[in-house]
Amino acid sequence: MHQQTVHAWLADLASEAPTPGGGAAAAMNAAVGAALVSMVCNLTIGKPRYAAHESTMIEVRHQADQLRQQALELAEQDAAAFGRVMAAYRLPRQTEQEQQTRNQAIQDALVEAADVPLRTAAVAAEVIGLADRILEGANVNVISDVAVAAASARAALSAAVINVEVNLAGITDADRKAKLTDALVKYQGVEADADRIIAAVRSRINQ
Amino acid sequence: MHQQTVHAWLADLASEAPTPGGGAAAAMNAAVGAALVSMVCNLTIGKPRYAAHESTMIEVRHQADQLRQQALELAEQDAAAFGRVMAAYRLPRQTEQEQQTRNQAIQDALVEAADVPLRTAAVAAEVIGLADRILEGANVNVISDVAVAAASARAALSAAVINVEVNLAGITDADRKAKLTDALVKYQGVEADADRIIAAVRSRINQ
Repeated sequence: MHQQTVHAWLADLASEAPTPGGGAAAAMNAAVGAALVSMVCNLTIGKPRYAAHESTMIEVRHQADQLRQQALELAEQDAAAFGRVMAAYRLPRQTEQEQQTRNQAIQDALVEAADVPLRTAAVAAEVIGLADRILEGANVNVISDVAVAAASARAALSAAVINVEVNLAGITDADRKAKLTDALVKYQGVEADADRIIAAVRSRINQ
Repeated sequence: MHQQTVHAWLADLASEAPTPGGGAAAAMNAAVGAALVSMVCNLTIGKPRYAAHESTMIEVRHQADQLRQQALELAEQDAAAFGRVMAAYRLPRQTEQEQQTRNQAIQDALVEAADVPLRTAAVAAEVIGLADRILEGANVNVISDVAVAAASARAALSAAVINVEVNLAGITDADRKAKLTDALVKYQGVEADADRIIAAVRSRINQ
């Protein structure tokens, strides 16, 4: 994906190939959000008018750059994890022993496959947190981009949660299920955070 | 952008260069949503279980493929429109005549620059409409991708509306302002449509 053109990656996403799919799309949305946070920092740093926010902007830019890289890696990892689920489903299931081995392999693969979107959700939530941190001190000429960053990361978060839930639905072990369900709880209010950021930007634009 | 790698495009988005910016990001979100709609259609078409939905899927795929191309073109056009706004601001303003010419050029450029996100909003709303159309008949194995498509297109729509509003804020002509404001009205309920699609998918996954 790193070396693919935007055009080719989107064509792959659109194709009947199982990957890239919704997991990679969520990660891409997170990467777009992180990139816009970096851009806003870059266009604020060094401007005398925003000197009071300089250190915040430098710190946030560093974190956003890292989150963008993480998101890109998660897009790749999603395909690998999905591949392992598919491989597990293709294992032989003639004998009882084979069926047991196959079921265990499927379960392990599904837990792994749920972990990737869980990490995408974490990245997306962090991007929304960064958008919130730069909201006050951002260069007013690019304040709309703070909202676009929040909107893109919000989409990433919604999508990532759904992708965790899809894998959760196939997991039979109660402990593993409970652990994953618990891990999603902390993201419940984060979409509302994004909405608050977007509303704040709109009220500043339209005042 | 077409020929840029995903990695390079995101690095450009993150950089202090004024374009690509939020307008291109919105268009990219729309393209990702459209691509996922195409993917769901591709993974549904030809499956006997979904034969009753075959003609809808073929039609929706065709439209989604076109919307993806349109979104990519809008990402490019956004940069061009922004460049014209910047060029207008750089016009000389020593004499009264120069000031008048410059103001007119800025106004014309802002109207053009508002038109690109307005078309992005239209594309995003269409993608949400297509996600809605395939919700019932989509291959159940990729039903989550219908939600991810809706989430990505929803982000595109929110972002595009904000990008229109930013340009609107600089437009002084009352008629032009009213026309653009009116054009946004029809998108007011579309985010809720996306939310409804996402909720429907989640209730099917978690049932």
